[in-house]
Amino acid sequence: MVNLDPIAEDAIEPIALPVRDEDGRLDSDFIAAIEAAIEAEDSAELILLAANLHEADTGDLIETLAEDARADFVRLLGDEFDYTALTETDEAVRIKLLEALPNSEIAEALGELDSDDAVYILEDLDEEDQAEILGGLPYADRAQLQKALDYPESSAGRRMQSEFIAVAQFWTVGQTIDYMREAQDLPDSFYEIYVVDPAFKLLGAVALDKILRTKRDQKVTSVMDETRHAVLATEDQEEVARRFERYNLVSSAVVDETDRLVGILTVDDIVDVIQEEAEEDMRALGGVGDEEISDSVLTTARSRLTWLVVNLGTAVLASAVIGLFDQTIEAMVALAVLMPIVASMGGNAGTQTMTVAVRGIATQELGTRNMIRVLRREVLVGLLNGVALAILIGLTAWLWFQDLGLGVVIGGAIVINMLFAGLSGLLIPVALDRLKVDPAIASSVFVTTVTDVVGFFAFLSIAALWFGLPF
Amino acid sequence: MVNLDPIAEDAIEPIALPVRDEDGRLDSDFIAAIEAAIEAEDSAELILLAANLHEADTGDLIETLAEDARADFVRLLGDEFDYTALTETDEAVRIKLLEALPNSEIAEALGELDSDDAVYILEDLDEEDQAEILGGLPYADRAQLQKALDYPESSAGRRMQSEFIAVAQFWTVGQTIDYMREAQDLPDSFYEIYVVDPAFKLLGAVALDKILRTKRDQKVTSVMDETRHAVLATEDQEEVARRFERYNLVSSAVVDETDRLVGILTVDDIVDVIQEEAEEDMRALGGVGDEEISDSVLTTARSRLTWLVVNLGTAVLASAVIGLFDQTIEAMVALAVLMPIVASMGGNAGTQTMTVAVRGIATQELGTRNMIRVLRREVLVGLLNGVALAILIGLTAWLWFQDLGLGVVIGGAIVINMLFAGLSGLLIPVALDRLKVDPAIASSVFVTTVTDVVGFFAFLSIAALWFGLPF
Repeated sequence: MVNLDPIAEDAIEPIALPVRDEDGRLDSDFIAAIEAAIEAEDSAELILLAANLHEADTGDLIETLAEDARADFVRLLGDEFDYTALTETDEAVRIKLLEALPNSEIAEALGELDSDDAVYILEDLDEEDQAEILGGLPYADRAQLQKALDYPESSAGRRMQSEFIAVAQFWTVGQTIDYMREAQDLPDSFYEIYVVDPAFKLLGAVALDKILRTKRDQKVTSVMDETRHAVLATEDQEEVARRFERYNLVSSAVVDETDRLVGILTVDDIVDVIQEEAEEDMRALGGVGDEEISDSVLTTARSRLTWLVVNLGTAVLASAVIGLFDQTIEAMVALAVLMPIVASMGGNAGTQTMTVAVRGIATQELGTRNMIRVLRREVLVGLLNGVALAILIGLTAWLWFQDLGLGVVIGGAIVINMLFAGLSGLLIPVALDRLKVDPAIASSVFVTTVTDVVGFFAFLSIAALWFGLPF
Repeated sequence: MVNLDPIAEDAIEPIALPVRDEDGRLDSDFIAAIEAAIEAEDSAELILLAANLHEADTGDLIETLAEDARADFVRLLGDEFDYTALTETDEAVRIKLLEALPNSEIAEALGELDSDDAVYILEDLDEEDQAEILGGLPYADRAQLQKALDYPESSAGRRMQSEFIAVAQFWTVGQTIDYMREAQDLPDSFYEIYVVDPAFKLLGAVALDKILRTKRDQKVTSVMDETRHAVLATEDQEEVARRFERYNLVSSAVVDETDRLVGILTVDDIVDVIQEEAEEDMRALGGVGDEEISDSVLTTARSRLTWLVVNLGTAVLASAVIGLFDQTIEAMVALAVLMPIVASMGGNAGTQTMTVAVRGIATQELGTRNMIRVLRREVLVGLLNGVALAILIGLTAWLWFQDLGLGVVIGGAIVINMLFAGLSGLLIPVALDRLKVDPAIASSVFVTTVTDVVGFFAFLSIAALWFGLPF
C-alpha cells in the first residue's frame, strides 16, 4: 500500500499511529493505545484514535479487544461509533456485544444504517431482542427491515439494500440527473439506477457512466440495459453469488415474485458470499462446520465431535476387515507393519480426486457432458500413479524385509487401491450431488471407507494367497 | 432468475433456446444446436445462436465443445466472436485454442479489447507467439500491453486496466462531465474517476454518483476521496484481493513506484482472485496443485504424484514405528486390528484443527494476539473430544475382544493422540507461516506424521506395558 497524502493538511485528522503493520494485521502499538484509552475511560482520546477508522478496521479491532473491553469501546465512542463495523465481525462476537448494549441505543443506531447492514446486524439476534429493537425504530424503517427479515435466511432479500434510485421509463437523462441531485435517503454509494414501469415492474438498468456520457435530452430507455440477470428476492445467496461471479456483475436489481423492483444487491455484499462458499467446501472437506476462530470450547468441541464419531464408524469398519485376517497377520507380522501404507496412499489419492471433483461440482465445471472424459482421466491417473508408487513401495518393502514376494504383494495392492481411489473420489461426490446431498460434507467419509477397506482387504488377501497363509 | 422482457420486441434478436438449464449449467439442447451448426459449417446459424451470448456463457460453451470443434467455432463466428470469452475459459483450453488460431487474427482481435483482457489472454502464451501477436498491433496498443507484461506475474500491473479517466485537480465537476462525454478509448464501464496533479501523481478518486449529485461549478477536489488504498502496480494480486475484500472496494487506482497513476483495478477482476485464493488453500490441503478439470492425464498424474511420494515418506515412517513393536503384535494380534483406529481418529482431529488454522492464517484472523487463547481452546477441545471418543472406542474394543484392558489401553492412546492432534494441527501451520512456507501446502504432511507416529506409538507402547508384552 502506497501512502499518498499530498493534501493531508486539509484532512480533518491525521491518525498518528499506523493502523496496520506490514503484514496487514492490526498494529500492536495501535491496539495498545486503544486499550490504554479504554482502560483510562478516556473518551476524547479514543475518539481521536478510532472514530475515523474504516468500518473494517473497527470490526477487526473489536474482535481483537478482550471480551469485556468491547462494550466499553462502543460506549466511550458514543455517537462516533459506526455500527456498520458490526457487519465486519464474527457472528459470535457481534451477538455478545449486542447483548451487552442497550436495545434503545441499538435501535437509534440502526436507523442511520443502510437497510442491508441493519438487517445483517438484526438477523442473528433472538426474536425478543429483535422485536424490541424494531419497536424503537420509526415506522417506515421498521416496516422496511421487517420485510427484509421475512425473507428466508441467506436469501437475496436478506442481503439486499432497499435504498436505490428508480425512474420512470419516459424520463430523460436530464430529469434523472436532476432527481438524483435532490433525492434523500440514497445508499452510500451506487453504480446504476433502475427504470420501472408505472406498476414498479423492473424494465432495466442504466450504469452511471452511461448517464454521464449521454446528452440530457435523451430518454433513459435509450441507454438502458434490459435486465437479463435480475435476482429474485427469495433466491439463495449462493445462487446469486455464482451469477455475480459468472457475469462479472457489480450490482443487480432484486425483484419480487411479481417482477417488481424491491431492492438492489452490490458486489461488496456478494464478495463475502463468494469467499464463504469456497471456504465452506474447504471446511466441509476438513471435517469442520461453520465454526469461527472466536467460538467457545464447548461449541467447537460439540460441532467437531459429530464428524469424528462418523469417522469412527469408518475406522471400525476398516478394523473389522483387518480382523478377518488376524490369523494371516499372526503368521506374518510384517503384514501388520506394512498394511497402513496401502490404506494411507489410497486415502491420499482418493482425497486428491475428491477435492477436484467437489470443487468442479460447486463451480459447475464438472457435469454430465465431461463426466466420461474425467472418469477416464481419473482411472488412467490412478493406474499410472499406482504403478509408479507400486514400484517405489515394492522396492522399499523388498529391501526392508528382504522378501521380494512382499514387495510384489504390496505393489499389487497399491495399484488396485489407487484405481479404487480415483473411481470413488470422483463417483462418490457426483452420486451425492445427484442425491441432493452436499458432496463437500459427505464425500470424504465414504471415500476413506472405500480406500481403507479396499486397501486392507486387497493387501491382506493377496498376501494370504501368495504366501499360502491361513485366514 | 426471473425473465423480465417487457421490451423484448425491440431487442435485436431473441435467442430461441434457453442457454442454461435450471441448475445453471449450459442447456444440452442449446449445446446440441451449436454442435450441429459447427458440424454443418453453418456460419449464419451459429451467429444467430451464439453471437449475442454473454462472454461468460461463450467461455463455458467453448470448454464444453470437443477440442477440435473449438477453433471451428471461433472461425465460423468470424468478427462476431468476442475474444473476451477467452478470459472465461481454463488456461489449458485457452492456450490450445490460441495455438490453433492465426496470430494475425488474434492480434487484430486483441486491439479491440480492454487492456486487462488482452494481457490476460497474452500472458500464458510462449514468448515467440507473444512477440508475433504484439508485433501485429498498432504501436500505442503494443507499448501499453508490453508495459503490463513487464510487471511480475500475478501482480496488480498484470491485472489492471490502462483505460481510465483522470482529471486535473483544478477542474470543476462540469468540466469533468463535459470531458467524459467527449473522451475516446474509455473502459467498457467504470465507477470512479481519478484526480491527478500536473506530474500525474494520484491525488484521489471521485465516485460517479458523487459527480452526478454535485453542482457543475464545484471543484472536483471538493467531492474527492483522498486515496487511502491505492495499489502499487508491483503488488501481488492476493494482497490486493485481500484489501478489496476487507474494505469492500469496487475499484482502485494503481500507481507506480513514483505514485503516478498507471491504471485501475475493478472488483470483477478481483472476485476471481478472491475465489481462487480460498480455492488454492482447499486444493493445497487436498494435495492437489492448481490443476484444472481440463488438464491432460500426464499433467495431472505428474502433479499429483509429487504429493503422494511425500506422503509415502510419512506412511513409511509410521510403519517403522509399528515395526518397533512387531513382537508385541505377534503376541497379541488384536493390536494390529485396532491400531489404525487410533491413527485415523488423530488424523481426522488434526485435519479439523489444521483446516481452521490454515484458513485463519490466510484471512489474518489468527495472529499473535489470539494465539494463546486459540491454543488453549484447541487443547481443551482435544481433551474433551478425546475423552468422549475414548469412552466410545474403549467400550467398542472391550465388547469386541471381550477384554477390558484392551478398552482401557485404546482409550488412553486416543486421549493422548487427540491432544497431539490439536497441538500439531495448530502449531505446525503457524510455525510454517513464520518460516514463510505456505501452511496450506505443507501442513497436512507434518500433521499426519505426528498423528500417525504418536497414535501407533502410544497405543502399542501402552499395550506392551499394560499387558507385559515383549517389544
